[in-house]
Amino acid sequence: MAPTLNILERLDAGEIVIGDGGFVFALEKRGYVKAGPWTPEAAAEHPEAVRQLHREFLRAGSNVMQTFTFYASDDKLENRGNAQRFTGAQINEAACDLAREVANEGDAMVAGGVSQTPSYLSCKSEAEVKGIFKRQLNVFVKKNVDFMIAEYFEHVEEAEWAVQVLKTSGKPVCASLCIGPDGDLNGVSPGDCAVRLVKAGANIVGINCHFDPMICVKTVKMMKEGVERAGLKAHYMVQPLAYHTPDCNCQGFIDLPEFPFGLEPRIMTRWDMHKYAREAFNVGIRFIGGCCGFEPYHIRAVAEELATERGYLPAASVKHGNWGAGLEMHTKPWVRARARRDYWEKLKPASGRPKCPAMSTPDSWGVTKGHADLMQHKEATSLDELKPLFEKAKASH
Amino acid sequence: MAPTLNILERLDAGEIVIGDGGFVFALEKRGYVKAGPWTPEAAAEHPEAVRQLHREFLRAGSNVMQTFTFYASDDKLENRGNAQRFTGAQINEAACDLAREVANEGDAMVAGGVSQTPSYLSCKSEAEVKGIFKRQLNVFVKKNVDFMIAEYFEHVEEAEWAVQVLKTSGKPVCASLCIGPDGDLNGVSPGDCAVRLVKAGANIVGINCHFDPMICVKTVKMMKEGVERAGLKAHYMVQPLAYHTPDCNCQGFIDLPEFPFGLEPRIMTRWDMHKYAREAFNVGIRFIGGCCGFEPYHIRAVAEELATERGYLPAASVKHGNWGAGLEMHTKPWVRARARRDYWEKLKPASGRPKCPAMSTPDSWGVTKGHADLMQHKEATSLDELKPLFEKAKASH
Amino acid sequence: MAPTLNILERLDAGEIVIGDGGFVFALEKRGYVKAGPWTPEAAAEHPEAVRQLHREFLRAGSNVMQTFTFYASDDKLENRGNAQRFTGAQINEAACDLAREVANEGDAMVAGGVSQTPSYLSCKSEAEVKGIFKRQLNVFVKKNVDFMIAEYFEHVEEAEWAVQVLKTSGKPVCASLCIGPDGDLNGVSPGDCAVRLVKAGANIVGINCHFDPMICVKTVKMMKEGVERAGLKAHYMVQPLAYHTPDCNCQGFIDLPEFPFGLEPRIMTRWDMHKYAREAFNVGIRFIGGCCGFEPYHIRAVAEELATERGYLPAASVKHGNWGAGLEMHTKPWVRARARRDYWEKLKPASGRPKCPAMSTPDSWGVTKGHADLMQHKEATSLDELKPLFEKAKASH
Amino acid sequence: MAPTLNILERLDAGEIVIGDGGFVFALEKRGYVKAGPWTPEAAAEHPEAVRQLHREFLRAGSNVMQTFTFYASDDKLENRGNAQRFTGAQINEAACDLAREVANEGDAMVAGGVSQTPSYLSCKSEAEVKGIFKRQLNVFVKKNVDFMIAEYFEHVEEAEWAVQVLKTSGKPVCASLCIGPDGDLNGVSPGDCAVRLVKAGANIVGINCHFDPMICVKTVKMMKEGVERAGLKAHYMVQPLAYHTPDCNCQGFIDLPEFPFGLEPRIMTRWDMHKYAREAFNVGIRFIGGCCGFEPYHIRAVAEELATERGYLPAASVKHGNWGAGLEMHTKPWVRARARRDYWEKLKPASGRPKCPAMSTPDSWGVTKGHADLMQHKEATSLDELKPLFEKAKASH
Repeated sequence: MAPTLNILERLDAGEIVIGDGGFVFALEKRGYVKAGPWTPEAAAEHPEAVRQLHREFLRAGSNVMQTFTFYASDDKLENRGNAQRFTGAQINEAACDLAREVANEGDAMVAGGVSQTPSYLSCKSEAEVKGIFKRQLNVFVKKNVDFMIAEYFEHVEEAEWAVQVLKTSGKPVCASLCIGPDGDLNGVSPGDCAVRLVKAGANIVGINCHFDPMICVKTVKMMKEGVERAGLKAHYMVQPLAYHTPDCNCQGFIDLPEFPFGLEPRIMTRWDMHKYAREAFNVGIRFIGGCCGFEPYHIRAVAEELATERGYLPAASVKHGNWGAGLEMHTKPWVRARARRDYWEKLKPASGRPKCPAMSTPDSWGVTKGHADLMQHKEATSLDELKPLFEKAKASH
Repeated sequence: MAPTLNILERLDAGEIVIGDGGFVFALEKRGYVKAGPWTPEAAAEHPEAVRQLHREFLRAGSNVMQTFTFYASDDKLENRGNAQRFTGAQINEAACDLAREVANEGDAMVAGGVSQTPSYLSCKSEAEVKGIFKRQLNVFVKKNVDFMIAEYFEHVEEAEWAVQVLKTSGKPVCASLCIGPDGDLNGVSPGDCAVRLVKAGANIVGINCHFDPMICVKTVKMMKEGVERAGLKAHYMVQPLAYHTPDCNCQGFIDLPEFPFGLEPRIMTRWDMHKYAREAFNVGIRFIGGCCGFEPYHIRAVAEELATERGYLPAASVKHGNWGAGLEMHTKPWVRARARRDYWEKLKPASGRPKCPAMSTPDSWGVTKGHADLMQHKEATSLDELKPLFEKAKASH
Repeated sequence: MAPTLNILERLDAGEIVIGDGGFVFALEKRGYVKAGPWTPEAAAEHPEAVRQLHREFLRAGSNVMQTFTFYASDDKLENRGNAQRFTGAQINEAACDLAREVANEGDAMVAGGVSQTPSYLSCKSEAEVKGIFKRQLNVFVKKNVDFMIAEYFEHVEEAEWAVQVLKTSGKPVCASLCIGPDGDLNGVSPGDCAVRLVKAGANIVGINCHFDPMICVKTVKMMKEGVERAGLKAHYMVQPLAYHTPDCNCQGFIDLPEFPFGLEPRIMTRWDMHKYAREAFNVGIRFIGGCCGFEPYHIRAVAEELATERGYLPAASVKHGNWGAGLEMHTKPWVRARARRDYWEKLKPASGRPKCPAMSTPDSWGVTKGHADLMQHKEATSLDELKPLFEKAKASH
Repeated sequence: MAPTLNILERLDAGEIVIGDGGFVFALEKRGYVKAGPWTPEAAAEHPEAVRQLHREFLRAGSNVMQTFTFYASDDKLENRGNAQRFTGAQINEAACDLAREVANEGDAMVAGGVSQTPSYLSCKSEAEVKGIFKRQLNVFVKKNVDFMIAEYFEHVEEAEWAVQVLKTSGKPVCASLCIGPDGDLNGVSPGDCAVRLVKAGANIVGINCHFDPMICVKTVKMMKEGVERAGLKAHYMVQPLAYHTPDCNCQGFIDLPEFPFGLEPRIMTRWDMHKYAREAFNVGIRFIGGCCGFEPYHIRAVAEELATERGYLPAASVKHGNWGAGLEMHTKPWVRARARRDYWEKLKPASGRPKCPAMSTPDSWGVTKGHADLMQHKEATSLDELKPLFEKAKASH
């Protein structure tokens, strides 16, 4: 069953489309995804867990059920060296079925997702890399998803290739990079990246992962300005981290020393999400979701902030008083006194960690943008082999 | 199906029993519990969500499936003024069925839980309060849970009454207070509380909720010392918050200005949980679990820390490299370099919030221990009515 | 007695010239300057205090005794509304005498200083403003200072006027703005400011006050690049705050909520000054000193960092072991273990203030660069009168 | 010239006596004292610097000019191994002359000071240690100081010996320990220490150095309670650090990793000093001063807070508007808006150091109270020699 309207019809009509949150991080905490490889075999292995998470995002207000197919390209699954019980096709198909099953519980759309590949990072040819995307696309076409998202690309060139492949399906295509205001890992600016993606055929362009909401919104704004300067047209999307990352360098939260097992103190509150949703809306972004760190209640906060514009609250708001109103039923009077918007808007929440700092120094061995692809290309290589290369790279600066 | 051994047999044999995490907070984030009333109607309303959470804790290593019956006494459900579609009995029964269903997927025990009542706080008679517990107990007996937990009591007297009722079932009884080193809200010390609970018939005594793991472990240690000084015997349990709360006063995290919607920066990492589990073990506690804030990966960390003592890893460790070992498969070499124990043990994680402090001032209108029951007893009263009472109370100091 | 070489001869010869620290802040803490008016009547009123501070900077390694004549223009002294017992001429003359007296205790140079005037901010004519500078210059010429510094200017135009006046003395002229990388309060970039100042006749250009050392050094670097791009030549100076100000906006530390009575937690350590001195040197700055917050030991740290380049240590290093070496004589062994460079270089000093944040939000009523002169011009006006103007200004944005 | 009334007459009459601040730290920053040995040869070597600092404290409101004779016992001066140009007698005499000279500029009293000795820490006999104090006392008697202070003692026994010697002069005697609520380094409680000191003949007892004001006031309160419980009578004094030290262990700020060259972020503001002065007064302390870290403006804040009780403001308040009132003359209106008490009382000043924590872990090699004297006794020994002793000491725990 396809949803009533497709995503472009909705966006063209001025609707706000709310995305879902990041599955790999949420399911890692629930025990179904392994940090490091970050592969989505849970779609086939533990469908009940994936289904439940889809359902929670649906209840929270998501209009898009994104297939849990992050890093599910054949080369990535192989590359991880795991003796998977499931083939890439099995995982991709199971993910499509789960997304559709839950989407049909509401009026949500199913988006098939592809992401950056080890093949590109290992300098495989355009044909080879496109072949990888094509194999995944075949599943999405067979399962008749509603639209496609090419997301989590650090190099705009690979994202262009993905878009070109996905366009062959005739479905609407989103292209989302995991870059910040400094541009992609080859230094292409957000504005230029956006123009190239639109020219490659993307209908919706934007940013996901790697940076906190405000940085991502700012980067999408730069993309929008680039597209408009070029006299082109597009819709815009943003699906940021749910972590505060003011101290990131160009490679985002990956380089923070806390990644991925010490990010807790950075987790955003629901009130942070209200500010994010408003800011994204004000900038002109209409496909607004989340990535790593987003839990269902974060998406619900986005939906609650935009409830007036959308004309309705999400189902899960039944279990949430507006701006903390549920506290009016708390036992202690001074907790009841917190049941108001300006209390939560002004709160500067303490960390409870007096021996920890507020910011970290990104940990990237002093490697700069110019050497990023060196490092990427070597991903299969051992640490020991790489060290001399780094020394050389740093020395040459 | 009952588990192979009951909890007392396990503890007597020197086994470590791992509890589960806190359901109200986890399900609030997932969209099924309303903060403020904190009632567990989801057991009947959305069983798939409750079942999935049980399953995640089971995978994470929990030996105990605690029925999701927190605040499920009839007086509490009424008091919340909600037009519930479900009766107290329906909720309690559904919760028992879900706990047993998932417990049977492993070799876990089912624990029926009761918690403090508005009846006590409103100065109802011992008979009336005991009647409330009795009605819940009837369900647990009918559903044949494996043992009982009376938890989240701020006054030892009410906990004694609960224990006395639960003992009539013939099942092992745990009694767990939500107090810190300063004692219960009437100022009874942890040691004296423990002695009274053991004398009332509790087999296992300890602490849950309200304070961070280290404070809770310290408080259980004081209970243990009290019991031993009195020449009594008991087993010990601890199910703390997963939040850092060094700045709490005697009423715990409730009084922190961040409660309950701004606690994110205080969330403990998995590595914090390793330290907690080791400390609890060293102190002689053998029933080790979690309360509000605990997610499945926190319980898995407890299980991984104690894997040598228990002789096995939990199922969910398949998706977790020991001490971050999964990162050895990460793309970036400097992230691979984080795949080691001492990296994570030494990390002081940054908050990413340079405008927020490390500690807060508890927010309790300057009311001290002596007035705690005044406030408790007034819980149904409006804020405006209460203000003069507070003024008077403060003036009298 | 004039020093052996004048400042330009020294700089041309590649020497490093070390400036002194900020007198108004140091003497405010000692009880001789009033925060708010910040006027230097102490030169005439309490010469022993001013003399002692000069002497401490001389001992610490300063090559420049700057006359304590900040805000000592006649219009500023009047404007403050104080019934001063001393005329502007008396203050300026006394300041020259004190600087010369102490300079002669070493081989230091005396620099006469002028700073921005209320006349400029009140839109007085170029002739009037230049008249103000001329009156101060007469004293400096009479007292035969070694060179002149026009410092603490927020508008490059006024600084140009000052330079033009000072040049008539035939003495070397420094021009130092209190701006950051965003440029002066009219938005003129640091590079353009520098070019204009050099064209106006300044021999040495740079930055003082308002921002922390690293920001100031960065801004001087921008000035240097501007001068070099324009094919001009100059020497460069920097005299920053001794406060960490990563959270400043374009008006610097004035707008931080901590200014001026809560800046203590931002005070830089001596080790921070080592980094500053090295960075300033590396950028090509050769006149390196300090402004508000600098105490004698901060200047000594600058001199110690550059001791190899300068070929000698300052007198006060007799009372300072290199990199903490004096601790080798401490009573406790673990304090002795701190007597080494890498200990202090790596230390991240704690604030001891768990309820305070790391950064503030600058407090400027949301007024942006465009309105800066509005505010400046109104300085004599009362707060109440100004409020509607601000409201209007903000509304027009 | 002796002051109008002696200290006991003043205290008996209910007067508040304001002490001065710490000379070694203030003069270290000014370039006249070496951190590590911390000896006061500047009294003879650079009298102008010492005189000026006395004068600043006098202006700030100090009623007591304490001779700059900290660590000026012969054994300490020798022990430091420095080829001093001055004998102990010369230093002590010069210090008396400077204190008297400046005291006479107001109506201040001169207090002769002795502090703990290396002889005691090296287990010399009572007679030998008393001989050390006697030699210093001879100078103070000859110079006819107004009263005596035995301060900075970590062991009450040595302080008793000092008091017994000082009493022979017939002058009032103060005894001040550098301990916290945990008691002296042998574990004698503050209350018991105070009783012993009063019995030894001290007229005024209290605490100086090592801890922040609030901790010191709390400790003096414990001393007072001890003295009153014992049915004795005394006056009370407190001269704390001007650093926030909530993270100290029993040996105080010496063990903080920031000691002594990274303490800047802990420096207290003038507003912190208002709170301190009020708290000390409320507890019943009437001799209120400062120790390490106190600058003249900190003492002025104490004097301003207690101006109503004392009936006058200090001289230096001419250069200080009450609660920031001087800012009313600031150029920028939003800075003028800070000219009010509640602004500064509520301010939580930021550190400007987002990569630094709020608290540290004291650094004492895990050595506990029991081993404190071991370490003390070994103070002349090299680090390498000591390490095995520590290992053994720790192993024995």
